[in-house]
Amino acid sequence: MGTLFGGIEAGGTNFVCAIGSGPDDIRQETEYSTTTPEETLGRAIDFFRSEDADLAAIGIASFGPLDLDISSPAYGHISSTPKPGWAGTDIVGRVGQALGLPVGFDTDVNGAALGEYRWGAARGLDTFVYLTVGTGIGGGGMVAGRLMHGLVHPEMGHIRVPHDRAADPFPGICPFHGDCLEGLACGPALEARWEQSPESLPGDHAAWPLEAHYLALALVNFICTLSPQRIILGGGVMKEPRLLPMIRERVQELLNGYVQAPEIMEEIEDFIVPPALGDHAGVLGAIALAARAAENQARQA
Amino acid sequence: MGTLFGGIEAGGTNFVCAIGSGPDDIRQETEYSTTTPEETLGRAIDFFRSEDADLAAIGIASFGPLDLDISSPAYGHISSTPKPGWAGTDIVGRVGQALGLPVGFDTDVNGAALGEYRWGAARGLDTFVYLTVGTGIGGGGMVAGRLMHGLVHPEMGHIRVPHDRAADPFPGICPFHGDCLEGLACGPALEARWEQSPESLPGDHAAWPLEAHYLALALVNFICTLSPQRIILGGGVMKEPRLLPMIRERVQELLNGYVQAPEIMEEIEDFIVPPALGDHAGVLGAIALAARAAENQARQA
Repeated sequence: MGTLFGGIEAGGTNFVCAIGSGPDDIRQETEYSTTTPEETLGRAIDFFRSEDADLAAIGIASFGPLDLDISSPAYGHISSTPKPGWAGTDIVGRVGQALGLPVGFDTDVNGAALGEYRWGAARGLDTFVYLTVGTGIGGGGMVAGRLMHGLVHPEMGHIRVPHDRAADPFPGICPFHGDCLEGLACGPALEARWEQSPESLPGDHAAWPLEAHYLALALVNFICTLSPQRIILGGGVMKEPRLLPMIRERVQELLNGYVQAPEIMEEIEDFIVPPALGDHAGVLGAIALAARAAENQARQA
Repeated sequence: MGTLFGGIEAGGTNFVCAIGSGPDDIRQETEYSTTTPEETLGRAIDFFRSEDADLAAIGIASFGPLDLDISSPAYGHISSTPKPGWAGTDIVGRVGQALGLPVGFDTDVNGAALGEYRWGAARGLDTFVYLTVGTGIGGGGMVAGRLMHGLVHPEMGHIRVPHDRAADPFPGICPFHGDCLEGLACGPALEARWEQSPESLPGDHAAWPLEAHYLALALVNFICTLSPQRIILGGGVMKEPRLLPMIRERVQELLNGYVQAPEIMEEIEDFIVPPALGDHAGVLGAIALAARAAENQARQA
């Protein structure tokens, strides 16, 4: 068995495939646009075949929703995505059979959470949240050392948060819920509300305190629901450097001393943090899923 | 070692102590008002001593907040409660030393969740929420077969939910957060808003659709955050029989087809359910904590 892993960061816009064993050892990498399942998965399979590396397993961190129920006939499939052609795609079956390797499979955010747990900002923890704020808002993480699954998997972007329409009349852009968290605070919502891209909004723009307010409301809800030991905030919208300090301050204001943990009351800089794995977090998450799949197989063998 | 367990349902208003092994086998039970820690815990210790039963362990399902971190010097203590005299009480140490027995310890809601998992509405599940709506609102449950802990423990009653002050100008009664979920929807909030006790509100009163709306918003947030396989709704406020069906309907409306699980879309009567253990749920939760403590000790021995 090889000691290298293949990782597929299966995004709705781009796929990233890489071979390596961790953040200091990514040997090959390729990125391309997501088109049809046939073509897009075919390119991934061709990449791993052509590299001729001795891989122990493949990990796939995918956009969803996904069927993650190992006892389901549709395990490893993408389920009800509106993305044309992808609903019902057996992504694990197709990749696993073509390459003859065990496959670790989870959501993109749970993959990223596992990567941060192995190598990054969640080392040594067992209960934490990973939230990404970008084109959409997605969340995953661990509770008591297990990646968060359940009936399906978390859809943290779709929680409802208070929305003062007098202060912010923007109705939200979620096609299902209007002003859920994602509808109010994802990148495209910022762009629609302010009529300019989030990257072009200056750091002192009124967009940022409002964005911090909505994200802080969401974090307060995750804190009260899960009691995480840390929250990792990633995604394109978080690239505005003034945002993270504003979120930390607003979380403390909103909790108002109710959760009397020094981690929140005194050391919030270590409690709400950026990802440690930077731009490789996605594909490293996939590699972490592969490593875990190989370990699970070794344990069963 | 005995095959019987002692359970202490440590409530802020009343303590219930019982000896038994499960829902069909509660042999002795006593209930009394919560006064000082000294007197209240003393009565519990006296009860178990006087019954002279051959107990394997004691379980304590307690009001909080609690220190549940087994590596903390304050493990087993009640932490920052405003309840006079109780902050810092070493409830596990005092009871365990007096009786010379292993002690299982958790929040009242995690205790109730464990009881429902062993004997009630959560049998066969591994990820579920138990929410109680009464004098306060509290939540617990399991993720991947583990009771929900973390930095501290969940405080689900304190999540923020949308509050339309035009439709409901009531400001909420939470001393920390005003209109958090508990501030808007616990029993005392109902009483303050409508100026009559929840029990006296007729089933066709406008209070109930509004209550269903707030609780449904909270459940939607728990569904999106945790993806539970079931939600159990207990507590005094839930005794109004029209409330549960209204909550189910409103959860489906709010999710609007986003989580395409048949359990939610088609079988919501089995997804949002009352506790199966009825009035004994609290002390049976404590007995379940005792049983688990005994099993853990046997495993380590």
